[in-house]
Amino acid sequence: MTSGGLPTLHHLNNSQSQRVLWLLEELEVPYTLVTHIRDPVTHRSPPSLHEATPLGKAPTLVTADGVSIIECSAIMAYLLKTYDTSRKFQGVGLIGHDPFLRDEVLTSYTSASVSPFTIALIFIHWGILSDNSAGKVVEPTLASMYEFLEAQLGEQDYFMGTTPGRPDFMLSWEVDFAVQNGWVELGPKLKAWRERILASSGWKRAMEKPGLPYDLTSFKKR
Amino acid sequence: MTSGGLPTLHHLNNSQSQRVLWLLEELEVPYTLVTHIRDPVTHRSPPSLHEATPLGKAPTLVTADGVSIIECSAIMAYLLKTYDTSRKFQGVGLIGHDPFLRDEVLTSYTSASVSPFTIALIFIHWGILSDNSAGKVVEPTLASMYEFLEAQLGEQDYFMGTTPGRPDFMLSWEVDFAVQNGWVELGPKLKAWRERILASSGWKRAMEKPGLPYDLTSFKKR
Repeated sequence: MTSGGLPTLHHLNNSQSQRVLWLLEELEVPYTLVTHIRDPVTHRSPPSLHEATPLGKAPTLVTADGVSIIECSAIMAYLLKTYDTSRKFQGVGLIGHDPFLRDEVLTSYTSASVSPFTIALIFIHWGILSDNSAGKVVEPTLASMYEFLEAQLGEQDYFMGTTPGRPDFMLSWEVDFAVQNGWVELGPKLKAWRERILASSGWKRAMEKPGLPYDLTSFKKR
Repeated sequence: MTSGGLPTLHHLNNSQSQRVLWLLEELEVPYTLVTHIRDPVTHRSPPSLHEATPLGKAPTLVTADGVSIIECSAIMAYLLKTYDTSRKFQGVGLIGHDPFLRDEVLTSYTSASVSPFTIALIFIHWGILSDNSAGKVVEPTLASMYEFLEAQLGEQDYFMGTTPGRPDFMLSWEVDFAVQNGWVELGPKLKAWRERILASSGWKRAMEKPGLPYDLTSFKKR
Protein backbone atom coordinates (compact mmCIF):
# COMPACT_ATOMS: atom_id res chain seq x y z
CA MET A 1 0.00 0.00 0.00
CA THR A 2 2.85 2.39 0.79
CA SER A 3 5.20 3.64 -1.83
CA GLY A 4 8.63 4.09 -0.32
CA GLY A 5 7.35 6.30 2.48
CA LEU A 6 5.90 8.80 0.02
CA PRO A 7 2.28 9.82 -0.31
CA THR A 8 0.70 8.63 -3.57
CA LEU A 9 -1.89 10.61 -5.51
CA HIS A 10 -4.23 8.64 -7.73
CA HIS A 11 -5.09 11.25 -10.30
CA LEU A 12 -7.64 11.23 -13.13
CA ASN A 13 -7.16 13.48 -16.14
CA ASN A 14 -9.77 16.23 -16.74
CA SER A 15 -10.99 15.91 -13.18
CA GLN A 16 -11.15 17.64 -9.82
CA SER A 17 -8.02 15.81 -8.68
CA GLN A 18 -6.13 18.52 -10.61
CA ARG A 19 -6.59 20.80 -7.59
CA VAL A 20 -4.90 18.29 -5.28
CA LEU A 21 -2.04 17.93 -7.76
CA TRP A 22 -1.63 21.70 -7.67
CA LEU A 23 -1.47 21.71 -3.86
CA LEU A 24 1.15 18.93 -3.88
CA GLU A 25 3.29 21.00 -6.26
CA GLU A 26 2.93 24.08 -4.07
CA LEU A 27 3.93 22.10 -0.99
CA GLU A 28 7.08 20.93 -2.80
CA VAL A 29 7.07 17.57 -1.01
CA PRO A 30 8.11 14.36 -2.76
CA TYR A 31 5.13 12.24 -3.80
CA THR A 32 4.25 9.48 -6.23
CA LEU A 33 1.82 10.38 -8.99
CA VAL A 34 -0.31 7.68 -10.60
CA THR A 35 -2.33 9.08 -13.50
CA HIS A 36 -5.44 7.27 -14.71
CA ILE A 37 -6.77 8.23 -18.13
CA ARG A 38 -10.48 8.54 -18.88
CA ASP A 39 -12.02 6.50 -21.68
CA PRO A 40 -11.83 8.95 -24.62
CA VAL A 41 -15.38 8.12 -25.78
CA THR A 42 -17.41 7.67 -22.59
CA HIS A 43 -15.22 9.96 -20.43
CA ARG A 44 -15.54 7.35 -17.69
CA SER A 45 -12.70 6.52 -15.35
CA PRO A 46 -10.67 3.45 -16.41
CA PRO A 47 -10.58 0.06 -14.66
CA SER A 48 -7.10 0.90 -13.33
CA LEU A 49 -8.59 3.48 -10.96
CA HIS A 50 -11.07 0.96 -9.60
CA GLU A 51 -8.30 -1.58 -9.16
CA ALA A 52 -5.95 0.85 -7.43
CA THR A 53 -8.32 2.54 -4.95
CA PRO A 54 -10.93 1.19 -2.50
CA LEU A 55 -13.83 3.21 -3.97
CA GLY A 56 -12.58 3.75 -7.52
CA LYS A 57 -12.54 7.49 -6.89
CA ALA A 58 -10.12 10.20 -7.93
CA PRO A 59 -8.53 11.83 -6.16
CA THR A 60 -7.54 9.16 -3.69
CA LEU A 61 -4.47 9.93 -1.64
CA VAL A 62 -2.62 7.02 -0.10
CA THR A 63 -0.60 8.40 2.79
CA ALA A 64 3.00 7.44 3.51
CA ASP A 65 1.51 5.12 6.17
CA GLY A 66 -0.76 3.41 3.63
CA VAL A 67 -4.07 5.01 4.62
CA SER A 68 -6.37 5.80 1.67
CA ILE A 69 -8.15 9.16 1.86
CA ILE A 70 -11.02 10.32 -0.36
CA GLU A 71 -12.66 13.76 -0.70
CA CYS A 72 -10.60 16.72 -1.97
CA SER A 73 -11.13 18.94 1.06
CA ALA A 74 -10.18 16.11 3.45
CA ILE A 75 -7.08 15.22 1.43
CA MET A 76 -6.08 18.88 1.47
CA ALA A 77 -6.70 19.18 5.22
CA TYR A 78 -4.45 16.15 5.73
CA LEU A 79 -1.70 17.40 3.41
CA LEU A 80 -1.67 20.86 4.98
CA LYS A 81 -1.63 19.49 8.53
CA THR A 82 1.13 16.99 7.69
CA TYR A 83 3.39 18.86 5.31
CA ASP A 84 2.64 22.59 5.69
CA THR A 85 4.17 22.80 9.14
CA SER A 86 5.24 26.43 8.57
CA ARG A 87 1.58 27.18 7.71
CA LYS A 88 2.57 28.94 4.48
CA PHE A 89 -0.77 27.97 2.92
CA GLN A 90 -2.98 28.54 5.95
CA GLY A 91 -3.56 32.25 6.04
CA VAL A 92 -0.26 34.09 5.46
CA GLY A 93 -1.00 37.77 4.83
CA LEU A 94 -4.74 37.35 5.40
CA ILE A 95 -6.26 40.61 6.57
CA GLY A 96 -9.36 41.04 8.72
CA HIS A 97 -10.37 37.37 8.99
CA ASP A 98 -9.78 34.53 11.42
CA PRO A 99 -7.90 31.99 9.22
CA PHE A 100 -9.64 29.00 10.83
CA LEU A 101 -13.13 30.37 10.19
CA ARG A 102 -12.25 31.71 6.76
CA ASP A 103 -10.91 28.31 5.69
CA GLU A 104 -13.94 26.41 7.02
CA VAL A 105 -16.55 28.78 5.58
CA LEU A 106 -15.07 29.20 2.09
CA THR A 107 -14.06 25.55 1.71
CA SER A 108 -17.58 24.45 2.60
CA TYR A 109 -19.11 27.20 0.47
CA THR A 110 -17.17 25.84 -2.50
CA SER A 111 -17.98 22.17 -2.07
CA ALA A 112 -21.46 22.35 -0.48
CA SER A 113 -22.94 25.44 -2.15
CA VAL A 114 -21.13 26.25 -5.42
CA SER A 115 -20.45 22.68 -6.51
CA PRO A 116 -24.06 21.35 -6.55
CA PHE A 117 -25.08 24.30 -8.71
CA THR A 118 -22.15 23.69 -11.06
CA ILE A 119 -23.36 20.08 -11.35
CA ALA A 120 -26.91 21.32 -11.99
CA LEU A 121 -25.52 23.56 -14.73
CA ILE A 122 -23.89 20.53 -16.35
CA PHE A 123 -27.26 18.75 -16.23
CA ILE A 124 -28.88 21.75 -17.94
CA HIS A 125 -26.22 21.81 -20.65
CA TRP A 126 -26.65 18.06 -21.14
CA GLY A 127 -30.35 18.74 -21.65
CA ILE A 128 -31.49 16.45 -18.82
CA LEU A 129 -32.40 19.21 -16.35
CA SER A 130 -35.12 21.64 -17.31
CA ASP A 131 -34.51 24.81 -15.38
CA ASN A 132 -37.67 26.49 -16.70
CA SER A 133 -40.11 24.91 -14.30
CA ALA A 134 -37.86 25.78 -11.39
CA GLY A 135 -38.22 29.42 -12.30
CA LYS A 136 -34.72 29.51 -13.73
CA VAL A 137 -33.06 29.04 -10.39
CA VAL A 138 -29.67 27.58 -11.28
CA GLU A 139 -28.03 30.26 -13.42
CA PRO A 140 -29.04 33.27 -11.28
CA THR A 141 -28.03 31.43 -8.09
CA LEU A 142 -24.62 30.58 -9.49
CA ALA A 143 -24.20 34.17 -10.69
CA SER A 144 -24.96 35.47 -7.19
CA MET A 145 -22.49 32.99 -5.71
CA TYR A 146 -19.75 34.29 -7.98
CA GLU A 147 -20.65 37.84 -6.93
CA PHE A 148 -20.26 36.78 -3.30
CA LEU A 149 -16.86 35.23 -4.07
CA GLU A 150 -15.75 38.35 -5.95
CA ALA A 151 -16.61 40.43 -2.87
CA GLN A 152 -14.92 37.95 -0.51
CA LEU A 153 -11.71 38.04 -2.51
CA GLY A 154 -11.63 41.82 -2.22
CA GLU A 155 -8.11 43.22 -2.45
CA GLN A 156 -6.42 39.95 -1.47
CA ASP A 157 -4.24 38.08 -3.98
CA TYR A 158 -5.82 34.85 -2.79
CA PHE A 159 -8.82 34.04 -0.61
CA MET A 160 -6.44 33.04 2.19
CA GLY A 161 -4.04 35.98 1.84
CA THR A 162 -0.78 36.40 -0.08
CA THR A 163 -0.50 32.64 -0.71
CA PRO A 164 -3.30 30.29 -1.77
CA GLY A 165 -5.09 28.24 0.89
CA ARG A 166 -7.58 25.39 0.90
CA PRO A 167 -10.45 27.53 -0.44
CA ASP A 168 -8.27 28.67 -3.35
CA PHE A 169 -7.22 25.11 -4.22
CA MET A 170 -10.82 23.92 -3.89
CA LEU A 171 -12.30 26.74 -5.93
CA SER A 172 -9.81 26.46 -8.81
CA TRP A 173 -11.64 23.39 -10.13
CA GLU A 174 -15.11 24.93 -9.94
CA VAL A 175 -13.96 28.11 -11.65
CA ASP A 176 -11.97 26.34 -14.38
CA PHE A 177 -14.93 24.08 -15.11
CA ALA A 178 -17.37 26.98 -15.40
CA VAL A 179 -15.01 29.30 -17.30
CA GLN A 180 -13.63 26.74 -19.78
CA ASN A 181 -17.21 25.94 -20.75
CA GLY A 182 -18.25 29.60 -20.93
CA TRP A 183 -20.92 29.15 -18.27
CA VAL A 184 -19.82 31.91 -15.95
CA GLU A 185 -18.50 35.43 -16.46
CA LEU A 186 -15.89 36.23 -13.84
CA GLY A 187 -15.70 39.64 -12.21
CA PRO A 188 -12.37 41.52 -12.52
CA LYS A 189 -11.00 40.34 -9.17
CA LEU A 190 -11.77 36.67 -9.73
CA LYS A 191 -10.42 36.97 -13.25
CA ALA A 192 -7.12 38.34 -11.94
CA TRP A 193 -7.09 35.63 -9.25
CA ARG A 194 -7.47 32.91 -11.89
CA GLU A 195 -4.71 34.43 -14.07
CA ARG A 196 -2.49 34.63 -11.00
CA ILE A 197 -3.01 30.87 -10.47
CA LEU A 198 -2.41 29.94 -14.11
CA ALA A 199 0.84 31.95 -14.08
CA SER A 200 2.14 30.47 -10.83
CA SER A 201 5.08 28.08 -10.91
CA GLY A 202 3.22 25.47 -8.81
CA TRP A 203 0.30 25.36 -11.26
CA LYS A 204 2.66 25.22 -14.23
CA ARG A 205 4.61 22.33 -12.74
CA ALA A 206 1.34 20.48 -12.14
CA MET A 207 0.33 21.02 -15.77
CA GLU A 208 3.65 19.67 -17.03
CA LYS A 209 3.09 16.19 -15.59
CA PRO A 210 2.90 13.48 -18.27
CA GLY A 211 -0.49 12.36 -19.57
CA LEU A 212 -2.35 15.30 -18.21
CA PRO A 213 -4.94 16.90 -20.45
CA TYR A 214 -7.04 19.31 -18.41
CA ASP A 215 -9.73 20.01 -20.99
CA LEU A 216 -12.96 20.42 -19.08
CA THR A 217 -15.00 21.21 -22.20
CA SER A 218 -15.13 17.49 -22.96
CA PHE A 219 -18.03 17.22 -20.48
CA LYS A 220 -20.13 19.36 -22.80
CA LYS A 221 -20.39 16.70 -25.49
CA ARG A 222 -22.83 13.95 -24.70
CA MET B 1 -25.00 42.28 16.40
CA THR B 2 -24.25 40.46 19.65
CA SER B 3 -26.98 39.15 21.90
CA GLY B 4 -25.85 39.41 25.49
CA GLY B 5 -22.63 37.52 24.82
CA LEU B 6 -24.53 34.48 23.54
CA PRO B 7 -24.27 32.91 20.10
CA THR B 8 -27.46 33.33 18.04
CA LEU B 9 -28.77 30.73 15.63
CA HIS B 10 -30.94 31.97 12.79
CA HIS B 11 -33.01 28.90 12.11
CA LEU B 12 -35.48 28.10 9.33
CA ASN B 13 -38.18 25.48 9.86
CA ASN B 14 -38.06 22.32 7.68
CA SER B 15 -34.46 23.03 6.77
CA GLN B 16 -30.91 21.86 7.23
CA SER B 17 -30.42 24.27 10.13
CA GLN B 18 -32.15 21.58 12.25
CA ARG B 19 -28.83 19.76 12.44
CA VAL B 20 -27.10 22.83 13.93
CA LEU B 21 -29.94 23.21 16.44
CA TRP B 22 -29.38 19.59 17.45
CA LEU B 23 -25.64 20.21 17.97
CA LEU B 24 -26.36 23.29 20.10
CA GLU B 25 -28.68 21.21 22.30
CA GLU B 26 -26.03 18.48 22.65
CA LEU B 27 -23.41 21.05 23.62
CA GLU B 28 -25.73 22.36 26.34
CA VAL B 29 -24.45 25.91 25.98
CA PRO B 30 -26.75 28.92 26.31
CA TYR B 31 -27.72 30.42 22.96
CA THR B 32 -30.37 32.59 21.41
CA LEU B 33 -32.68 30.93 18.89
CA VAL B 34 -34.37 33.01 16.21
CA THR B 35 -36.78 30.90 14.17
CA HIS B 36 -37.83 32.03 10.71
CA ILE B 37 -40.91 30.36 9.22
CA ARG B 38 -41.16 29.42 5.54
CA ASP B 39 -44.00 30.76 3.42
CA PRO B 40 -46.57 27.93 3.71
CA VAL B 41 -47.40 28.07 -0.02
CA THR B 42 -44.08 28.68 -1.77
CA HIS B 43 -41.91 27.10 0.98
CA ARG B 44 -39.55 30.05 0.51
CA SER B 45 -37.72 31.62 3.41
CA PRO B 46 -39.42 34.75 4.78
CA PRO B 47 -38.19 38.37 4.51
CA SER B 48 -37.20 38.24 8.20
CA LEU B 49 -34.33 35.88 7.39
CA HIS B 50 -33.06 38.21 4.69
CA GLU B 51 -33.29 41.16 7.05
CA ALA B 52 -31.54 39.39 9.91
CA THR B 53 -28.58 37.80 8.10
CA PRO B 54 -26.04 39.12 5.56
CA LEU B 55 -26.86 36.51 2.89
CA GLY B 56 -30.43 35.59 3.85
CA LYS B 57 -29.28 32.04 4.54
CA ALA B 58 -30.21 29.58 7.25
CA PRO B 59 -28.45 28.48 9.24
CA THR B 60 -26.51 31.63 10.03
CA LEU B 61 -24.74 31.64 13.37
CA VAL B 62 -23.89 34.99 14.89
CA THR B 63 -21.08 34.37 17.36
CA ALA B 64 -20.94 35.94 20.82
CA ASP B 65 -18.48 38.41 19.25
CA GLY B 66 -20.92 39.36 16.51
CA VAL B 67 -19.33 37.48 13.60
CA SER B 68 -21.85 35.94 11.17
CA ILE B 69 -20.97 32.42 9.98
CA ILE B 70 -22.66 30.52 7.15
CA GLU B 71 -22.31 26.88 6.04
CA CYS B 72 -23.38 24.07 8.39
CA SER B 73 -20.03 22.32 8.53
CA ALA B 74 -18.20 25.59 9.23
CA ILE B 75 -20.69 26.58 11.96
CA MET B 76 -20.24 23.15 13.53
CA ALA B 77 -16.44 23.36 13.33
CA TYR B 78 -16.64 26.74 15.10
CA LEU B 79 -19.08 25.53 17.78
CA LEU B 80 -17.05 22.40 18.52
CA LYS B 81 -13.76 24.32 18.68
CA THR B 82 -15.27 27.02 20.91
CA TYR B 83 -17.63 25.13 23.21
CA ASP B 84 -16.63 21.44 23.10
CA THR B 85 -13.40 22.01 24.99
CA SER B 86 -13.56 18.51 26.55
CA ARG B 87 -13.87 17.12 22.98
CA LYS B 88 -16.91 15.02 23.91
CA PHE B 89 -18.17 15.25 20.32
CA GLN B 90 -14.84 14.87 18.55
CA GLY B 91 -14.17 11.17 18.59
CA VAL B 92 -14.88 9.75 22.06
CA GLY B 93 -14.88 5.94 21.86
CA LEU B 94 -13.95 5.92 18.19
CA ILE B 95 -12.14 2.70 17.29
CA GLY B 96 -9.60 2.18 14.54
CA HIS B 97 -9.71 5.65 12.98
CA ASP B 98 -7.81 8.91 13.32
CA PRO B 99 -10.55 11.30 14.58
CA PHE B 100 -9.18 14.23 12.54
CA LEU B 101 -9.19 12.31 9.27
CA ARG B 102 -12.49 10.57 10.01
CA ASP B 103 -14.17 13.92 10.68
CA GLU B 104 -12.77 15.55 7.54
CA VAL B 105 -13.54 12.65 5.21
CA LEU B 106 -17.08 11.89 6.38
CA THR B 107 -18.09 15.53 6.77
CA SER B 108 -16.95 16.25 3.22
CA TYR B 109 -18.47 13.01 1.94
CA THR B 110 -21.82 14.14 3.35
CA SER B 111 -21.80 17.67 2.01
CA ALA B 112 -19.82 17.27 -1.22
CA SER B 113 -20.83 13.77 -2.36
CA VAL B 114 -24.16 12.71 -0.77
CA SER B 115 -25.82 16.14 -0.77
CA PRO B 116 -25.60 16.91 -4.52
CA PHE B 117 -27.18 13.55 -5.27
CA THR B 118 -29.93 14.19 -2.73
CA ILE B 119 -30.58 17.49 -4.51
CA ALA B 120 -30.62 15.66 -7.86
CA LEU B 121 -33.17 13.24 -6.39
CA ILE B 122 -35.38 16.18 -5.45
CA PHE B 123 -35.10 17.44 -9.04
CA ILE B 124 -36.15 14.01 -10.30
CA HIS B 125 -39.15 13.90 -7.97
CA TRP B 126 -40.10 17.41 -9.03
CA GLY B 127 -40.05 16.14 -12.59
CA ILE B 128 -37.47 18.67 -13.81
CA LEU B 129 -34.54 16.24 -14.03
CA SER B 130 -34.81 13.32 -16.41
CA ASP B 131 -32.53 10.62 -15.11
CA ASN B 132 -33.25 8.32 -18.05
CA SER B 133 -30.84 9.90 -20.49
CA ALA B 134 -28.11 9.83 -17.87
CA GLY B 135 -28.45 6.06 -17.73
CA LYS B 136 -30.26 6.26 -14.38
CA VAL B 137 -27.22 7.48 -12.52
CA VAL B 138 -28.70 9.27 -9.52
CA GLU B 139 -30.62 6.56 -7.68
CA PRO B 140 -27.98 3.80 -7.98
CA THR B 141 -25.22 6.25 -6.98
CA LEU B 142 -27.12 7.35 -3.90
CA ALA B 143 -27.85 3.71 -3.02
CA SER B 144 -24.13 2.87 -3.24
CA MET B 145 -23.31 5.90 -1.06
CA TYR B 146 -25.70 4.65 1.61
CA GLU B 147 -24.05 1.22 1.40
CA PHE B 148 -20.68 2.88 1.97
CA LEU B 149 -22.07 4.77 4.98
CA GLU B 150 -23.61 1.57 6.39
CA ALA B 151 -20.18 -0.08 6.19
CA GLN B 152 -18.43 2.95 7.66
CA LEU B 153 -20.76 3.00 10.65
CA GLY B 154 -19.96 -0.64 11.35
CA GLU B 155 -20.42 -1.54 15.01
CA GLN B 156 -20.11 2.05 16.24
CA ASP B 157 -23.11 3.79 17.84
CA TYR B 158 -22.19 6.91 15.90
CA PHE B 159 -19.82 7.62 13.04
CA MET B 160 -17.50 9.37 15.49
CA GLY B 161 -17.74 6.78 18.29
CA THR B 162 -19.94 6.55 21.36
CA THR B 163 -21.11 10.16 20.97
CA PRO B 164 -22.15 11.88 17.74
CA GLY B 165 -19.62 14.06 15.95
CA ARG B 166 -19.70 16.48 13.03
CA PRO B 167 -20.37 13.76 10.41
CA ASP B 168 -23.35 12.51 12.47
CA PHE B 169 -24.81 15.99 12.84
CA MET B 170 -24.22 16.70 9.15
CA LEU B 171 -25.66 13.41 7.93
CA SER B 172 -28.82 13.59 10.06
CA TRP B 173 -30.35 16.11 7.66
CA GLU B 174 -29.50 14.15 4.50
CA VAL B 175 -30.88 10.92 5.96
CA ASP B 176 -34.04 12.52 7.37
CA PHE B 177 -34.74 14.17 4.04
CA ALA B 178 -34.32 10.96 2.07
CA VAL B 179 -36.15 8.72 4.57
CA GLN B 180 -39.10 11.02 5.28
CA ASN B 181 -39.73 11.13 1.54
CA GLY B 182 -39.27 7.39 1.09
CA TRP B 183 -36.40 7.89 -1.34
CA VAL B 184 -33.86 5.71 0.40
CA GLU B 185 -34.04 2.38 2.21
CA LEU B 186 -31.64 2.39 5.16
CA GLY B 187 -29.59 -0.67 6.04
CA PRO B 188 -30.03 -2.08 9.57
CA LYS B 189 -27.08 -0.21 11.06
CA LEU B 190 -28.04 3.19 9.67
CA LYS B 191 -31.64 2.54 10.70
CA ALA B 192 -30.56 1.87 14.29
CA TRP B 193 -28.31 4.95 14.15
CA ARG B 194 -31.23 7.13 13.09
CA GLU B 195 -33.48 5.70 15.82
CA ARG B 196 -30.72 6.33 18.34
CA ILE B 197 -30.65 9.98 17.29
CA LEU B 198 -34.44 10.42 17.36
CA ALA B 199 -34.53 8.89 20.87
CA SER B 200 -31.70 11.05 22.24
CA SER B 201 -32.47 13.80 24.73
CA GLY B 202 -30.56 16.41 22.71
CA TRP B 203 -32.60 15.71 19.59
CA LYS B 204 -35.84 15.72 21.58
CA ARG B 205 -35.01 19.07 23.18
CA ALA B 206 -34.29 20.49 19.71
CA MET B 207 -37.65 19.24 18.46
CA GLU B 208 -39.49 20.85 21.37
CA LYS B 209 -38.48 24.39 20.43
CA PRO B 210 -41.47 26.59 19.56
CA GLY B 211 -42.50 27.00 15.92
CA LEU B 212 -40.53 24.07 14.67
CA PRO B 213 -42.20 21.80 12.17
CA TYR B 214 -39.60 19.46 10.68
CA ASP B 215 -41.72 17.98 7.92
CA LEU B 216 -39.41 17.41 4.99
CA THR B 217 -42.11 15.85 2.81
CA SER B 218 -43.38 19.35 2.00
CA PHE B 219 -40.64 19.57 -0.62
CA LYS B 220 -42.33 16.79 -2.56
CA LYS B 221 -45.33 18.89 -3.52
CA ARG B 222 -44.66 21.34 -6.30
